[in-house]
Amino acid sequence: MNISNNPVKGFLLDITGVLYNSDPNTIGRVIQGSVEAVNRLYAESTVRFVTNESTRSRKHLFEKLTKLGFTVNEEHIFMPVPEAKRYIKDHNLRPHILVHKRVREEFEDLDTNHPNCVLLGDAEGGFTYETMNAAFRVLQKTSDPLIITLGCGKFYQRLDGPCMDVGGFTRALQYACDARVITIGKPEEQFFRNAVDDMGLMTNQVVMIGDDIVSDVGGAQKAGIRGVQVRTGKWRQCWINHTIKPDLLADDLQSAVDMLLKKKTN
Amino acid sequence: MNISNNPVKGFLLDITGVLYNSDPNTIGRVIQGSVEAVNRLYAESTVRFVTNESTRSRKHLFEKLTKLGFTVNEEHIFMPVPEAKRYIKDHNLRPHILVHKRVREEFEDLDTNHPNCVLLGDAEGGFTYETMNAAFRVLQKTSDPLIITLGCGKFYQRLDGPCMDVGGFTRALQYACDARVITIGKPEEQFFRNAVDDMGLMTNQVVMIGDDIVSDVGGAQKAGIRGVQVRTGKWRQCWINHTIKPDLLADDLQSAVDMLLKKKTN
Repeated sequence: MNISNNPVKGFLLDITGVLYNSDPNTIGRVIQGSVEAVNRLYAESTVRFVTNESTRSRKHLFEKLTKLGFTVNEEHIFMPVPEAKRYIKDHNLRPHILVHKRVREEFEDLDTNHPNCVLLGDAEGGFTYETMNAAFRVLQKTSDPLIITLGCGKFYQRLDGPCMDVGGFTRALQYACDARVITIGKPEEQFFRNAVDDMGLMTNQVVMIGDDIVSDVGGAQKAGIRGVQVRTGKWRQCWINHTIKPDLLADDLQSAVDMLLKKKTN
Repeated sequence: MNISNNPVKGFLLDITGVLYNSDPNTIGRVIQGSVEAVNRLYAESTVRFVTNESTRSRKHLFEKLTKLGFTVNEEHIFMPVPEAKRYIKDHNLRPHILVHKRVREEFEDLDTNHPNCVLLGDAEGGFTYETMNAAFRVLQKTSDPLIITLGCGKFYQRLDGPCMDVGGFTRALQYACDARVITIGKPEEQFFRNAVDDMGLMTNQVVMIGDDIVSDVGGAQKAGIRGVQVRTGKWRQCWINHTIKPDLLADDLQSAVDMLLKKKTN
C-alpha cells in the first residue's frame, strides 16, 4: 500500500506523543508545529482524534488540549471509556474496576456488585500488589475469567522517560488466571471505524497519524486505513526493522500534514 | 506413564501448599499429617525439597519449617536464589534486582552497576507501579532485554485467599518491552535434575509431589520424573480436566507417601 494510492480526505490523530509529550509534574509540552498542524487540518480537511488515553475523562483531556493551545471540538475526541461502558452495559457485565483515580467517577453508574469481570485502565500509581491481587481474586472466582482492557499499549513516552502502559498489567492478570481479554481502543478495528464513520468517510480515504507502530500504524492498517508513523513521542529508531511497515514515515505531525495536504491539493 | 512402572527410590517435595499453608499474618499452618510424612520419608527413603519460594532465604525457610515442627536438613532444600546467582555470575550479568525485601541481602555480592538485565522474584508488596516501571526502564535501555525470573508461578494459595505469584509480573515486563525470559526454578528441567543428582538417583526412580499442576506435576514429567498432585494448597477441582495428567492424585502428602512407600516395600 502506498500513501499516494488514494486521495486523503480525513485524518485520524493520536494525541500523546503526537500533539504533546506528557510530563508527570506539569501539563506537558506541545510538540513543535502540532498546534498549527491541527488548525490547518480543521481549516482544510476533516479530523478526529483517536486516543487510548484512560488516565483522564474526555472533558479533562479537552480542557488540557485547550490549555496547551489546541483548538479542537470535544466531540471529535474518541476514547475507550465510553466504548467500554457501552460494551459492559450491552453484555450485562458487573466489572471490578481498576482504573486511574481521575476516571473512576466515569464508571459510577455501572453495577459493580458481585463482579463477574475486571475492567482495567492505565491506573499508573494505582497499580500495586494489593490492587492487582484484588482484581486477580475476582477473576479466580469466575468460571470464565474476563478482562476488559482500555487499550493494550506496551508503553508511552513521558518527558522523564518511558512508562509502562496498561497492556503489561493486563498480561499479568491474564497469565495468572488464564483469562480472556477484550481490548477496547486501538488497535481494535471497531475503534478506528467509529471515528471514520463519524467523518462520513470510507476507511481507504483516511490516514491515521500516530507514534505507536503497533496500536496506531498496525491497528489502522488492519482496519484498511493508511498508517503514518511520526518520529516523536515513543518513536524508536529500531522500528525501522519492525514487521509493521508504515505507509509514510514523517518527522512529526506538522511534517506529515504538510506532505499529505500538499498531496491532497495537487 | 503409570506410577507403579518403576520402584520409587526418592521423593521430591514442594513446600508451600504441601507441607504447610501460608498466612500473611502468622507463621502459617501445617497441613495435617505432613510432619509425620516427612519423618517417614527421612526414615524409610530419600527426600529433597524443591520450592520456588523467593520471599525468604533458605536459612529463614529452614527456621520456619523447624518452628512448624518439621525435622529437615537445610542442605536438602533446593531454591531458585542460589541457582540464579550462579547463572548471573557465569554470564557476567549485572542485574537490576526486584525481589522481596527479605531476600535482597542474598544478592548483595552481585555487581549491579549499569544493569543489563532484570532479576525478578516474588516481591509481593514490593510490586508497585514505580518499581515495575524502574525495571521496565532498565530493560528498555538494553538492545536485548533479558528478565531472569525466580520461578514463573501463576499464583499460590494463602489462608486468606489466592495470591498472584511472580509469573504475572514477569509477563507484564516481557510484554512491555519484548524481553527474553529465563526461568530459574520449577518447571525448568535442570532445577529438578539438580535435586535428583544430589540424591544419587535417576529421574525415573523419583516422584515429585506438589500442589501446582504446571510447575510441579508438568515440570517433573517433562524432566522424566513421575508427578504426584495433592489436593491441598492451590489444588483446583477443575484441574481434573487439565491437559497435564498427574501420575497419581492424592488427598494430601501423607496419603501420597503412604501409598508410595507401601508400594516400595511390596
